[in-house]
This record gives sequence, C-alpha cells and structure tokens, in this order.
Amino acid sequence: MTQALFIRHQPMLDQALAAIDQRGYWSPFSEMPSPKVYGETAADDGKATFDARLGQPFPITQPGTTGQAGQEVSPYGPTLGVTYPRPDLDALFGAIEAAAPAWREAGPTTWVGVCLEILTRLNRRSFEMAHAVMHTTGQPFMMAFQAGGPHAQDRGLEAVAYAWQAMRGIPTRATWEKPQGKNAPLRMEKTFTVVPRGIGLVIGCCTFPTWNGYPGLFASLATGNPVVVKPHPGAILPLAITVQIAREVLAEAGFSPDIVTLVANNPDERMASTLALRPEVRLIDFTGSTANGEWLERNAHQALVYTEKAGVNQVVIDATDDLKGMIRNLALSLALYSGQMCTAPQNLYIPRDGIDTPDGHVTFDGVVAALGEALQKLTADPAKAVEILGAIQNDGVAQRIDASRALGKVVLDSQTIAHPQFPEARVRTPLLLKVDVRDEDTFTQELFGPIAFVIATDSTDQAIATARRIAKQHGALTLSGYTTQRNVESQLEDAALDAGVALSLNLTGPVLVNQSAAFSDFHGTGANPAANAALADTAFVANRFRVIQARRHLKD
Amino acid sequence: MTQALFIRHQPMLDQALAAIDQRGYWSPFSEMPSPKVYGETAADDGKATFDARLGQPFPITQPGTTGQAGQEVSPYGPTLGVTYPRPDLDALFGAIEAAAPAWREAGPTTWVGVCLEILTRLNRRSFEMAHAVMHTTGQPFMMAFQAGGPHAQDRGLEAVAYAWQAMRGIPTRATWEKPQGKNAPLRMEKTFTVVPRGIGLVIGCCTFPTWNGYPGLFASLATGNPVVVKPHPGAILPLAITVQIAREVLAEAGFSPDIVTLVANNPDERMASTLALRPEVRLIDFTGSTANGEWLERNAHQALVYTEKAGVNQVVIDATDDLKGMIRNLALSLALYSGQMCTAPQNLYIPRDGIDTPDGHVTFDGVVAALGEALQKLTADPAKAVEILGAIQNDGVAQRIDASRALGKVVLDSQTIAHPQFPEARVRTPLLLKVDVRDEDTFTQELFGPIAFVIATDSTDQAIATARRIAKQHGALTLSGYTTQRNVESQLEDAALDAGVALSLNLTGPVLVNQSAAFSDFHGTGANPAANAALADTAFVANRFRVIQARRHLKD
Repeated sequence: MTQALFIRHQPMLDQALAAIDQRGYWSPFSEMPSPKVYGETAADDGKATFDARLGQPFPITQPGTTGQAGQEVSPYGPTLGVTYPRPDLDALFGAIEAAAPAWREAGPTTWVGVCLEILTRLNRRSFEMAHAVMHTTGQPFMMAFQAGGPHAQDRGLEAVAYAWQAMRGIPTRATWEKPQGKNAPLRMEKTFTVVPRGIGLVIGCCTFPTWNGYPGLFASLATGNPVVVKPHPGAILPLAITVQIAREVLAEAGFSPDIVTLVANNPDERMASTLALRPEVRLIDFTGSTANGEWLERNAHQALVYTEKAGVNQVVIDATDDLKGMIRNLALSLALYSGQMCTAPQNLYIPRDGIDTPDGHVTFDGVVAALGEALQKLTADPAKAVEILGAIQNDGVAQRIDASRALGKVVLDSQTIAHPQFPEARVRTPLLLKVDVRDEDTFTQELFGPIAFVIATDSTDQAIATARRIAKQHGALTLSGYTTQRNVESQLEDAALDAGVALSLNLTGPVLVNQSAAFSDFHGTGANPAANAALADTAFVANRFRVIQARRHLKD
Repeated sequence: MTQALFIRHQPMLDQALAAIDQRGYWSPFSEMPSPKVYGETAADDGKATFDARLGQPFPITQPGTTGQAGQEVSPYGPTLGVTYPRPDLDALFGAIEAAAPAWREAGPTTWVGVCLEILTRLNRRSFEMAHAVMHTTGQPFMMAFQAGGPHAQDRGLEAVAYAWQAMRGIPTRATWEKPQGKNAPLRMEKTFTVVPRGIGLVIGCCTFPTWNGYPGLFASLATGNPVVVKPHPGAILPLAITVQIAREVLAEAGFSPDIVTLVANNPDERMASTLALRPEVRLIDFTGSTANGEWLERNAHQALVYTEKAGVNQVVIDATDDLKGMIRNLALSLALYSGQMCTAPQNLYIPRDGIDTPDGHVTFDGVVAALGEALQKLTADPAKAVEILGAIQNDGVAQRIDASRALGKVVLDSQTIAHPQFPEARVRTPLLLKVDVRDEDTFTQELFGPIAFVIATDSTDQAIATARRIAKQHGALTLSGYTTQRNVESQLEDAALDAGVALSLNLTGPVLVNQSAAFSDFHGTGANPAANAALADTAFVANRFRVIQARRHLKD
C-alpha cells in the first residue's frame, strides 16, 4: 500500500525534483479556483463543508483528549464556534511515542509516499481550506484560496522533494573492499538506515497558517518524524483540516494516525513554550514574533529550531523607466492583505531631490502623491477594496495602525471600510507616513500591518547604506529596488548579498515583491535576523534525519 | 589561477563525489609511509623539518600579533619549545573581516579549488605532520602518520566533496516563465549567489587535532567562510602547520592569507569561550569534553555549533565463531593508542554463564582471562608495545587510570612501560576491571584512556538493553557485537537504530571498532549525546552557506 503511494505520485515527485534543480516556474496544483480543474461542484461543496463545521466540535479523535479548546473569531466578524480536542500532553505524547517505531521502520519511500498523498488530498479540499483560511486570517477569498491552498501545497511538496533528494543520496548498502597488497582484500558489508530525529513540532502563525506551516510539517514528516501541530489560537481550523487529512492517509496506509496530531489552545493559554521544551520534541518549526522565536532558539536546546521572525522590508527608489508601473506595483504591495505579509514592504526610500522618470524629473512629493493617489484609487470602491485588503487579522494590528500615526507626517491616513458582505469585518486601508532618513528610530522596527514610511534621503547611496544596515541588524525577508542605472543595480546587489536578503529589481508589472514562488524563490535566506532558515532548501531538511550504519565482514 | 586549482584537482573531486555516493573503499592519499609514494627523502626531510622547528617561533606572520604563546610538551618527554603568534583578537578579527569580502566574492569553484590544493600540499608534508602529531598527541608513529596525515586529509576532502555537492545543486541563474492564459507569459530572470555564513571557528582537541579538526575546517572554508583555528594548547603544532599551508595557498591564489588564521594559547589561558562568543563567529566546530561542548551549544547562540563530545562505547559479547579472532581484535581495540580514541570500547558485556564458541562453551572468567592474556602478550615487549600504545597524552589520563582501580575488581592492572627510545615517555598498558551489571553507576560515564570494564550480565537481552539505554542517555560513537545468532544481530541492529549509534558486528580480523574510514563510515551520528553531527554528511555542510537571490523581469 505505502509503496503504492510512492509509485502513484512518483511522476509529481520527479517533476518537483527537476523544479528545485532548475528553479524555473512549476506547480502541480492549479492556483485558479476553476471548476474545470477542481470540479463543477467543488466551490459549493467547499463552502458547504466549511459552513457545516461552524459551531461544531471538529471531527478529529485523538488519544488523551480531556476536553475541547478553540475560540476563533473571523476577522470578517462571525465567531467560528469550532472546537478541537484539548489533550493531556503526557497521554498524547505517550501515544505518539507508541506509534513512532512503526513509522520509523517504514523508511523513506513510505514517508514520502504518504506525504505526497496528503498533499494531493489537501489540494482537492482547497475550497474548504480557502474559507477556513479566509475566516481565520482575514485574507481576501482569492488570496486565501491561492496562498492557503495550492501555493501552500507547493511549499509542502517542495520540502518533500528536498527531503527525498537528501535521503536518496544515502546508499542503503555498500561493499567496502580495501586492498591489502599481495594478500586478499579486506571486505566488509555496510548498511545505512535513515532514522528520524524524534518528534517535530510545528508552531503556526495567524496570517499564513498553511503556507508557513507546511514546509516544516512536511519536511519533518517526510523524514520519518511524527509531527505535533500547534496552530496559533486565532487560526486553528486550516491546520486542523490539514491534520485531519494527514491522519486519514496515515490510517489508510496502515499506520497509527497519531503520527500527526493537533494541539489546540485558547488565546489566554500558554502552550507553545510548554510543548517546545518537552524532551521528545527534537525539531521545531516556528513562524511568529522575534521575541518568541528568539526564546525558542535560546531555550529549546534539545531541538533543532527553525524560525521565521519579524523583519523590515525595504524599497530603494533611485529612478524608474515606468513610473506608473512602479507606483501601481508598490501600491498593490502595500495594500495586499493590508500589508499583513512578512514580505510586504514597509520602508520606501526616495531621494529628497526626486527621481528621474521617462516623464521627466519627479519631485519627492510628486512620487509620494502618486503613491497616495494609487492607494486611494485601489481602495475607493469598497467591493473591490475588500478583495485586495481582506480584513485586519486581530485588534493588535488595528491598534498598531492608530498608534503609528504619531511616527511621522501622515501622507495618507488609514480609513475604515465597510465590507459590503460582512458588516462586522475589520477592514482598514494603508497608513502612509512621511519621515526623514535622520528619524531612523521610527522605522527600524517591523510595524506589522498596513503601515509604510516614505523616507526622504540625501542620495541613493545613503538609501542603500541605510537599507543594508537595517536589514543586517533587524532582519528582512525582501529588498526591492528601482533604478535605471546598472551601477546602482550593482550596489543594490552588493547590499543584498551583504545583508543576506532576497532582492527584487524594477518590479513594474503584476509580480509583487511580497510574492514568493515555490520551487523558484527561496523564502527567507537564514542569513539575517528575520529567519534562521530558508523555505525550503537542503539545509532545511538534511538535519531532520540521521543515518545509522552497521558493518560486518563479508564472507567469501 | 583559482579556476586553475579547481580544474587541476577536479579528477580527485569527482572520485570523492562518487565515493560519498557509493560509500565503498576509496582514498587518494596513501596511508603507507612509503618512499615510493612520498619520495625517497620524504621521511628524512619530514623528520628534519620537525626537528628544526623545536625551540623556535613557528614561522607564521599574522596581523595583530602582540607576542608569542605555546608551551607544548611531548607525551614522549621533550618540551617542544615552539611558540606561535599571540593575537590581539580585535585586530585579528578586523583583518579577517577586511579579507572576507574578496573571498566571499570568489565563489564555490575557487573555495573548493583552494581547499583541494591545501589538502594536496598537506599530503606532501605527511611525514612532518606525523612527527608533529606524535609529539603532541602521544600517538605511536605509524598511527600519527596515518591518522594525522592521509586519513585526516581524507576526512577534509570528504567535507569538501559534500560542500561542493550541496553548492553545485544551486543553479546560478534561472528563467521563470509563468503562463498567463491567452496573454504573454510573465518572464523573470533570477540569479542565485552562494554566500558564506560568517567566520568559522575550529576548536581542536589534543588527541586527533587534524583528523577531528579538518572536517569542520574544510567544510567552512569550502563554503566561503574564513576560519579561525584554535588548537588545544597541548596540540598546537599539527594545526599550525595546517594553517601555514592554508595561508600559503591562499596568498598564492591572490587572497589575503588571513582567511585562515591561528589563535594559540597556553594551558592556563581562557580562549575558546572568548572566541566562541564573538559576534563575527557564525560557525563552531568543537571536539572535546561534554561540559565544554554543551556550554557551546547553550551559549554560542550567534553560531551554528557542531560538537563531538564524550560517549560510552560498548561491546556486547553473546557468542562467537572465532574466539581467538575476537579476543585479538578486542585486545588491540583496547590497547591502540592506550584507548585514547573517542571510538575505543570501554564496556564489554559478557554473560556471567559464559559464551558458546567453536571450541565449546567458555566461562565468563575464561573469556576475561583470554582477553587479559592477549593484552599482556600485546604489551610484553616494550619495543613492540610502544608502537601500539603510544604515550599517555596528559597527566589527567594517567591520574584517571590510577583513580579507576577502585571502580571494580582489577583483572589486569595498568603497567608503566619504559620506552626504549624516549625514557621520559608516559607509557601505560590498559587497566581491565571486572564489575557486575548491577554496578551501573561505575560504567555509565566515559573514562577516557586505557580503562575498560568486563561486565557480567544475566543474559544477552539484558546486555543489549543496558547498552542501548547507556548509549541513548550518555552517548556513544560505537557499538560492537559478537554473536552467531541472526536474531541477536537483529536485536543489536534495533538497539543501534534506537540509540543512534554505529554498529560493528563480529569484528575478528584486522578492522577495529575504533576505526572509521572516510568516504564510507559516518563518524558519529548526531543522534545521541556523543555528537550533534556526523563527520561528514550533507547536514554537516549545507547550513554553512546561504543562497541570496535577485530577480528582475526579462525584457523581450
């Protein structure tokens, strides 16, 4: 059965392996929510399934369950009312440890085959997942479908492909034959067995629970580790669906479903740090705040800790050969999901003397005004605006917007928009603040949400030096630059290499700096404080398993 | 020039890549100190070079040198009198940081080419290295030649091969072309640049300074990181010669020699912990005590820390089809370099009811007596004994032998042997102690040196269970078993997988459990407390570099 899963999905795996080697465009999962791909009734079925879950205990049965947890409220208003098993951790971990040996012994092809089947089934449930992601994260529907469904599945598959690539490099058997001059050679037979590290813990975030959670989940599972999934209390449902599917596939493949388990908690309950220090936990994948990520890195000594934390993403504007394209692109980057993306730009450096464009020289204020107008235009029609902005995930973000007004001169204030469909939805337009490069204190921390600075600089050299220093010290997932000069591009490339940040140059079309494509773009570099790993690469998977050898003499 | 180095050594690299994939026997460096391989005068030249170094400042010129350090005393008696530059660390690190950008920009083929040239030159100086290793570690000459020279060079090359394998998997350029239905596809050009993490620190040990030091040194250097080498104060010279050769090759290749530097200290001076906490240090490779290794793992948060620490290596004796071969093999394993190997066995479990052999049943005392006799025979002739035992590296080991007599019934006492050539040499034969399996407290810690326990057990099941538990809790680099039953082999294999330790079965010939062959045997597993990494595998190298990408639209 399990060998059959590997064989069934091997064509997809082979394509994924080719994709990570070539890093061109590839995806096996359609990002278009089209009935032609997903089936005529898929959209309605997904919505119906989601609706039926509301106000109900989530159908997942786990050992050691002592009650129910779960207090999710949609950023669009409604309380979800879904509850999840609340475990006694000792009982749960006991069950996992009991299930682990059979999974460990199954070996790489089984681990990978099961993962590929889980991903394939997740794909079929992308509509249900879209609603779950939308009503926990606040993403607009289309984004929730894409980022929560196929794009997240891509990231999971990418991790599986890297894991398989790393494991298949280990021979299962070798003959060692050492010449002994005139005597017969020494001959030994050696066997090499891939074994998992222990239990993997995935600590989810509230904005991209699946997209950020799948790489660690699938990297650990594909290398033989049981996985405990601890969602953010604000976004449990998407990962609960994921765990449900994983358990279903595991059971069908003849394993205990307890190889993948869910630990849900309410917002006021401590859970992540308790789980992270359990001795059975040997791998931790975390997405969240710098404070929590650093705490894990410094305290969970028994585990390998992979973290994505806060960062300050920056845009250096030197000149452009397409002013309209640049402004449109930047406005969309700031507005998309109300800037609640770890990759969204925050600091926009513009020379105080203005920039050169094909339409002539444009002043600093001219560029800023164009950006403000573009943002206003994007968000003028509420029906259209909400499909870009989505909703504010939590009150903390809304409060941050309000508190940030004092940080600079307000160029464009954040507005509340009434959602045509969900009257209680928290919808806010971006806040744009003007500051001077000398006010560095105001813009060196991440202000997560729709808050951006236009920063007047003396020169592009100064802008690049500032961006480099901030990315090195405070972390960054993205750096963006606009210029028409090759030497400025070179300076930006140097700064990106030095600060260990991914660079996007002259994005004036539909590709946003926020967007990171699986199999092609490495998300995070692990080379600055924003993340200690990249999603995904060989380093992300290669230490999740170990190799145990046995050797003996070969009899002639 | 640097491209030329890569091309010159590419055949060796290609063979190394094939070797790590197949894990059969291979080595490009002859382990026989033969004039046919190394040249007619190589032995004499090496000895002469070593002799000329004694009592002299070591010829290495580094920035920030404020004086000289170095108080090495040969375990064979003589004070070496060699001194090394004592650096002002701020000045030294300033010079390294100044040199780093040019090295970073040189890229993978240059890093690897330079490493391969260094290894090739190290090989030519294997005789000089043999004397340096012998007179710092106490190894007998032949072992010092092999383990200090060609075998260490093999381990360095193995790390370079893994590093190259990991880096060449990253495309330097990719075209990303995403279909847009009826519209023209989105097209982007992406570049990927491999960048080093920062500065690597290698903290050497006093028993195998090159063999244990080269994997980390070459893994970091081959991935673009400058390397600071901090030898154990008792074994500086072998790593000083290494650094000298590295600096020579770097300078010839057009780089600052400060990419590889030496930081020597005297025994009473704190240095490793100071270096380990410097913010510039992003990679640490350590071999040494559990206390120091754990301190690094828990405190050097700014760095990735690879440690090899203490462990308890064990032998489970259930039965044998070659009693003489088993006894000879075990005696040699205990005697070789006076057990001062991290892989040497310490705990030998024997059923109290004895074992089956082709010569009939042999009692517990019979097995123990045979082992004692074999050890006595091995060490009876001082001239031959010293070529196996070498010398005790430091007084701590000698004191540990004396203090350990009280831990059990002395079956064979440790004798002092007069070295025919070096009257002041500390030469000691192994101490063999008999204990009961119930006295577990006495044998669960590593007693580094020629100290071994024969442990009477109720059954092989009990022996395997005890060995498994101790390896899991206290760490182990090796586990060895003797049996004629397939089901006992299976039990041992299960225990090895569970405890994450490499298993050797029925070694009755010249291969010792202590010995680990590069390109074939993984040294350490990273799966128990004895080491958090294996020498070498993909996980050992893949996180020493990061990948920084840049993307821009492709113009049509």
